[in-house]
Amino acid sequence: MNAFADRLAEAVRRDGPLCVGIDPRFDMLPASYRKFPPGVAIEAFSLKVLELVRPFAGVVKPQAAFFERLGPEGMSAMQSVMWRATELGFVTILDAKRGDIASTATAYAEAAFGEDVWNADALTVNPYLGADAVEPFVNEARKSTPPRGLFVLVRTSNPGGGLFQNALADGVPLYRRVGAAVADWNDGGLGDCGLGDVGAVVGATHPQELAELRAALPRVWFLVPGYGAQGGTAADVRAGFLPNGLGAVVNSSRGVVFPFAPDDADWEAKIVAAAQRAQAELRGPL
Amino acid sequence: MNAFADRLAEAVRRDGPLCVGIDPRFDMLPASYRKFPPGVAIEAFSLKVLELVRPFAGVVKPQAAFFERLGPEGMSAMQSVMWRATELGFVTILDAKRGDIASTATAYAEAAFGEDVWNADALTVNPYLGADAVEPFVNEARKSTPPRGLFVLVRTSNPGGGLFQNALADGVPLYRRVGAAVADWNDGGLGDCGLGDVGAVVGATHPQELAELRAALPRVWFLVPGYGAQGGTAADVRAGFLPNGLGAVVNSSRGVVFPFAPDDADWEAKIVAAAQRAQAELRGPL
Repeated sequence: MNAFADRLAEAVRRDGPLCVGIDPRFDMLPASYRKFPPGVAIEAFSLKVLELVRPFAGVVKPQAAFFERLGPEGMSAMQSVMWRATELGFVTILDAKRGDIASTATAYAEAAFGEDVWNADALTVNPYLGADAVEPFVNEARKSTPPRGLFVLVRTSNPGGGLFQNALADGVPLYRRVGAAVADWNDGGLGDCGLGDVGAVVGATHPQELAELRAALPRVWFLVPGYGAQGGTAADVRAGFLPNGLGAVVNSSRGVVFPFAPDDADWEAKIVAAAQRAQAELRGPL
Repeated sequence: MNAFADRLAEAVRRDGPLCVGIDPRFDMLPASYRKFPPGVAIEAFSLKVLELVRPFAGVVKPQAAFFERLGPEGMSAMQSVMWRATELGFVTILDAKRGDIASTATAYAEAAFGEDVWNADALTVNPYLGADAVEPFVNEARKSTPPRGLFVLVRTSNPGGGLFQNALADGVPLYRRVGAAVADWNDGGLGDCGLGDVGAVVGATHPQELAELRAALPRVWFLVPGYGAQGGTAADVRAGFLPNGLGAVVNSSRGVVFPFAPDDADWEAKIVAAAQRAQAELRGPL
């Protein structure tokens, strides 16, 4: 039950597969928050969002770039948001897309999973540097208490994601090779739910490839971005799930967190409504 | 003369092609520094290294992972090191291997190049997400004052780097496709020196591929890791240079920064000697 895969399964069974992406952009904050210094403002807003969406999602995905944009103060805000999310019972995915080799990869993993640093339940990682660059992340995830997880970029949701990911080698697109490597790592960390600790990022904007990967990787958790603001629909993401309703968490960032104009007085109610709608929509097909 | 490529050319002409990698690991610091809290210790040590190596190198490459490992305090140390390096006249390459899409990529680039954030002259980026993920970095680099540069991962120095990078599609390895994309971006930002602002990371540990890429990408700056502690020699990196002695900066991290045991009293002299030796060795063949 402490396995990462099982903790994620528990969250999805309880609250559905919605993952709320925390991408705080100062310019889009409610007017009352834009009066504060940017670091304070994005921290306070993100903490408020965590409370508002908690009834509708069991997973959150803070995006490191929007915190790093504000320098050390932003990183301090990120730490506060990560810790509060854990306290509220969310499974946390730190979306930092890290990737490096050997002891450098280990340092990133120690930062991601360290209880005194970001304390993430899972981290997104980039596979371009190869197996010996992903393995230090896998090792650190498994050494942590409780064990943590990874989501490796396989097929990303952006329109140009196929430029290298779809390059065909011996008739097999690169992303399928990356997917096969993910499955190998993942099989070393299966939980009681039958899924493992090395997941794959697969965009909702490529439903055909999502379906193929679901069939090819039956024990791999998928993190599915691209639903909502990027154009993916609830029907598009259906192919990412296993028959038992597990296997995927579906991220919505702007669609849930910024469904209001900066001067709207009722922004809290709009976030609650957007989260509720996304939860219902994603639970519907299952 | 303000073009990134020209600022880098000026540094290489003046001080040679050595780039010193700043990878501060608390456990390896001199005994006198390990008495301080980790964030203070790695900041003070890194600032000292900048002063010690300044006569022997015009380029430094702080590694974000080792700062992030210490959380917000570590990021504060990184900011201090980046700013001081600029003040000392170094061209700074922030080795963070960032990669994301659209406005998220822009946020990372704003962090890297923002004068109030990391203020890097150049950033390393990961190409796996495709062209529309690299272009926001290119746009931000060119919008900055002075203009900044990028180094895109093409062929990394780790033993397993070929797993995906060497995947053959239509007889062409993936890293050559990435290299071709780099050349296209780079040609939009050429300086007076004839080189451009979108460079390539090419490991010293693959001298044959380094030579091929040098021939294929005559206007692209190379950042060459893997010299020194990772096994690449001065002879191995020779193929990365153009006949005029420009075209490559060669990174050494541990070999220059940690040539001592933690209890050595003469650690400063050992860093100076290591930097001097590396400068002479890399200038020798040119």
